[in-house]
Amino acid sequence: MNGAEALLRTLCAAGVDSCFSNPGTSEMHFVAAMDRVAGMRGIPVLAEGVATGAADGYGRMARKPAATLLHCGPGLANGIANLHNARRARSPVLNLIGDLSHTHRPADPPLASDIESLARVVSSWTRVARDVHAVAGDGAAAVAAAMGAGKGIASLVLPSDVCWTEGAQPAVPQVAAPASAVPSSAIARAVEWTALGAQTVLLLGGEALYGEGLAFAGAIARRTGARLMAESAIARIERGRGRPAVARVPYAPAAAIEAMASVGKLLLVGARRPVFSFAGPDGRSRPERTDLEVAVLAHAEEDIPDALARLAAALGCAPSPPHAVSVERVPPATGAVTPASFVQSLAALLPEAAIVVDESVSFGRDLFPHMGGAAPHDWLQLTGGAIGSGMPMATGAAVACPGRRVVNLQADGSALYTVQSLWTQAREGLDVTTVILSNRRYAILFDEMRRVGAAASRTASDLLSLERPEIDWLRMARAFGVEAERADTMAAFNAAFGRSLRARGPRLIELVL
Amino acid sequence: MNGAEALLRTLCAAGVDSCFSNPGTSEMHFVAAMDRVAGMRGIPVLAEGVATGAADGYGRMARKPAATLLHCGPGLANGIANLHNARRARSPVLNLIGDLSHTHRPADPPLASDIESLARVVSSWTRVARDVHAVAGDGAAAVAAAMGAGKGIASLVLPSDVCWTEGAQPAVPQVAAPASAVPSSAIARAVEWTALGAQTVLLLGGEALYGEGLAFAGAIARRTGARLMAESAIARIERGRGRPAVARVPYAPAAAIEAMASVGKLLLVGARRPVFSFAGPDGRSRPERTDLEVAVLAHAEEDIPDALARLAAALGCAPSPPHAVSVERVPPATGAVTPASFVQSLAALLPEAAIVVDESVSFGRDLFPHMGGAAPHDWLQLTGGAIGSGMPMATGAAVACPGRRVVNLQADGSALYTVQSLWTQAREGLDVTTVILSNRRYAILFDEMRRVGAAASRTASDLLSLERPEIDWLRMARAFGVEAERADTMAAFNAAFGRSLRARGPRLIELVL
Repeated sequence: MNGAEALLRTLCAAGVDSCFSNPGTSEMHFVAAMDRVAGMRGIPVLAEGVATGAADGYGRMARKPAATLLHCGPGLANGIANLHNARRARSPVLNLIGDLSHTHRPADPPLASDIESLARVVSSWTRVARDVHAVAGDGAAAVAAAMGAGKGIASLVLPSDVCWTEGAQPAVPQVAAPASAVPSSAIARAVEWTALGAQTVLLLGGEALYGEGLAFAGAIARRTGARLMAESAIARIERGRGRPAVARVPYAPAAAIEAMASVGKLLLVGARRPVFSFAGPDGRSRPERTDLEVAVLAHAEEDIPDALARLAAALGCAPSPPHAVSVERVPPATGAVTPASFVQSLAALLPEAAIVVDESVSFGRDLFPHMGGAAPHDWLQLTGGAIGSGMPMATGAAVACPGRRVVNLQADGSALYTVQSLWTQAREGLDVTTVILSNRRYAILFDEMRRVGAAASRTASDLLSLERPEIDWLRMARAFGVEAERADTMAAFNAAFGRSLRARGPRLIELVL
Repeated sequence: MNGAEALLRTLCAAGVDSCFSNPGTSEMHFVAAMDRVAGMRGIPVLAEGVATGAADGYGRMARKPAATLLHCGPGLANGIANLHNARRARSPVLNLIGDLSHTHRPADPPLASDIESLARVVSSWTRVARDVHAVAGDGAAAVAAAMGAGKGIASLVLPSDVCWTEGAQPAVPQVAAPASAVPSSAIARAVEWTALGAQTVLLLGGEALYGEGLAFAGAIARRTGARLMAESAIARIERGRGRPAVARVPYAPAAAIEAMASVGKLLLVGARRPVFSFAGPDGRSRPERTDLEVAVLAHAEEDIPDALARLAAALGCAPSPPHAVSVERVPPATGAVTPASFVQSLAALLPEAAIVVDESVSFGRDLFPHMGGAAPHDWLQLTGGAIGSGMPMATGAAVACPGRRVVNLQADGSALYTVQSLWTQAREGLDVTTVILSNRRYAILFDEMRRVGAAASRTASDLLSLERPEIDWLRMARAFGVEAERADTMAAFNAAFGRSLRARGPRLIELVL
């Protein structure tokens, strides 16, 4: 068999079963091999940022990599922004990047570029397949790298001769490097610190925010009075009724400073020490008190659930699994659209096991704290600050979790980077409800402008407006094959949201702010 | 004044007057400075690929750089594919890339990434502004680098503290390195070779394809019988009635081999030796005969018009400027839509001084040879093989050349990468007629698949189709504020095209194939 088929068989055997594809000539042998090999779902996308963002969303939910199929350096480049987000989220992703054949490259044809340099900026593992005998093993190594401790982005460059040459054999899947256990000293210190109660915060990241990890964290907090928090940008958290309450360090510096003011000891559990997205002219980079003490219970690459289990055992407490609780049910809001009324309706109407993909930016800044009483759900956020992540991420999460409704809270400015996602949602019949939070401008930048001390600017008002002309979101959605409606009151939103949940496949609601 | 204002004043003084902008927080001081400094037109775009592709189109027509304003590494990354095309076109482009402040970067905030490594892949000049006292000089150096011999992409990274700190002064514009004259030996050899007549081809690139360079090339061909050709992918060529005929090396390898079969001596004039875009399993990379002799009259970095003028003088011939010629006027075609009928209408209806931006891909492969009888026009093509270039390029060309109609021949699959361009065209009222060549699939890849020996594949047929669901181009255009109509006969196209020419601002025509 040829190299493409051997690679494909290897990936399937290693459990990779979804491939977000935007192929070109160099990738045609890999595409053709999909005819002969069952087990890989090819999902076409109209732009590479959709492929990589979808792989990010898929990886966050499935905890294994989807493949992306990208065309040469420019194809990879178009996907880098969402790979940047995936890198910050520690999502497992496997990039397959086609390239010119080895003998053709020296002629410097139009598409030749330095793929390796581009890939290394966002990848924890990068390799150019050398020849047809190595390529299947390269694939096995790439999957293991993506699945290894702390997860990561693996980029495999595939010169086309490696794919079309005969004589390859599939490789045996490789075992990913397991996460190492944290040292006992880290557990011992955590026992001491949590004994201090509310002045100690466990800052949770990665696997501390869902499943067993979160259950142990909840038990620890209940037993000791230590508080649970998460970074501003959360890759994935399980929330809703019956789940441990985890506060988030706010995005806005002033609010973050306030939230950290009562924190004397910070125990990092797969999370990074809080940092502002941007520093202003005052030079301050972090929201913490100057006398904050910081220690690590578990690095992101270490075995986080095991560390929390051992800490819980040392404290003599059992994990707190999701449990039924009686929370006062608040009805959906009526009246005007405000952040408060919107989150009230969202919490009331969100279906069980929904996946919320939050790229709500300025309008959504205060939604998160009010979703604790909603039905149990997952919440995924923009992690790397590269906007244009929400719609692709929702697409990938829906591929990973059929049967679960994905609700994409989507700022309009950000949506426009990767709006092509809607077509893939329509094509694959994905159960995604996109709520466009339509304020017709890059609203966050007006805040940021003030904060960094740039004067209120009429040029900025002009350059950051989406009003001239206004985007017609209903036509946009329908152009890509997605049904859409507009809501400008909460009553209209409630009805439209309900209809979207009863429908099969994607829907878009333009919520006029 | 602060660094942003000093930089902006420097750029304006150096003749940079257009800035395709997709700014974020890091760029707010530069945006604010536009309030205080006249002379820079800020043109907002919804995605960075539009900014860089527009700068490419602007640079090809204006022969000076537009600026792009991009947000950190991911913002640059989104623009790299079209910078790759611009690099292959030798377009002058000035990228201004905002970054985190120097003191904030060590905290590794979410948006931190290795901007320099990304920029170097596509730039001929890359610099990170060190401090407020250096930044204006950096800007002057960047413009000079973009304008220097052979033109190029200059990328200046702007940490935000450099922009907001006070104490800067504008810098004096720098003189760009002039192109050097070719050696006399190159002229002497060209005299010998052109004396051989039709077996000698002058392969023209860069400034040999328009203006004085083309006029001299035409005179040389007329005097000697040597033929004029251009590479498969042409950055910019002046064509139409009264202009010297220049054949293009076809894109398809078989046709390119045929076209090169009668060429015994190839004289490169700012062009590169022809190369296939992709090599197949036969390993052949170039269309030329094995006994082809190749020599250089002028490298791309050398003074091409001067070399052609000196060659013409040595041959004793005067330049042949565009002149009125009587060509049999062919009326627009009626009946079914075919490549032949389409180009017949286009040649008949194209207005004087139009700029054709050609990303017509498979449908448009044979259009070019038939446009010699059209009204004088410029023709711009995809140069780097990174599709998604046409709509942005049309946008930038229209900004560079107000008063001239831009006609964008646009394959549908390629259009979807950067369809956001339509909004900028609507916002700025640009006179762009976009003709979507709508075959509802990535048609070229079906050819390519056969050529590289990948079996006809049902997976490929599925992955490369745009029919499930179909894109609704009328809704798409209107969603972005552009009026649109559909044509499925040549009569309907002729009428719609005529209406678009009489209108002000952008129009889109979906030509159903």
